[in-house]
Amino acid sequence: MVTKVNLADTLSLFDDHWNPRIVGDLNDSYVKLTKLKGEFVWHSHEQEDEMFLVVQGQLVIRVRDQEDVILNEGEFVIIPRGVEHQPFAPEEVHVLLLEPKTTLNTGNVVNERTRAELERL
Amino acid sequence: MVTKVNLADTLSLFDDHWNPRIVGDLNDSYVKLTKLKGEFVWHSHEQEDEMFLVVQGQLVIRVRDQEDVILNEGEFVIIPRGVEHQPFAPEEVHVLLLEPKTTLNTGNVVNERTRAELERL
Repeated sequence: MVTKVNLADTLSLFDDHWNPRIVGDLNDSYVKLTKLKGEFVWHSHEQEDEMFLVVQGQLVIRVRDQEDVILNEGEFVIIPRGVEHQPFAPEEVHVLLLEPKTTLNTGNVVNERTRAELERL
Repeated sequence: MVTKVNLADTLSLFDDHWNPRIVGDLNDSYVKLTKLKGEFVWHSHEQEDEMFLVVQGQLVIRVRDQEDVILNEGEFVIIPRGVEHQPFAPEEVHVLLLEPKTTLNTGNVVNERTRAELERL
């Protein structure tokens, strides 16, 4: 049985920040939905490219040695493997993430923000 | 240099149907944008899961032995490998596709709709 996912409906199922939910299996990757607010840690992913698509709100992605990437609704960026970045959400933002199943949210950094086990919706 | 992609702006760069453009490299996959109108061929992808996210309009995906999947803006579906499907767009629809770089648009069928070489935007 093939079933669709409505982004807004699925995002309405949770309220917490920095805790991505798995909403789809796509080859070796997960599709995830998350709500972000505030500043995350600087980190990188050694082996994995990561895609951020803004569903609602605004997401700033700080990258070393270049201007901030400012994503509004309907905009995405791919952070290539090895590129250090820091997501920052001035206000709550709703984001679709696409990244390999092996990707840890905090990448090369492990701290209290690390989520090793993700819930599936 | 990490640069963002605005979906609507990029979709405004072309008008033809059933001719996906590559707009991002994500691990072993491409992110593609396409405009669809009318009925495509029934086909499947032996090794690849395929994601369809509707950016604007409505996309119907017919799948054998189940109800049609009707996707509106902000909805996606993942067609697992091996599942025969037929995209159908009653009116023009704008779609973001995510699939392995090896994926041929017509899957196991090769005909005049097949696009072996895709343009990059």
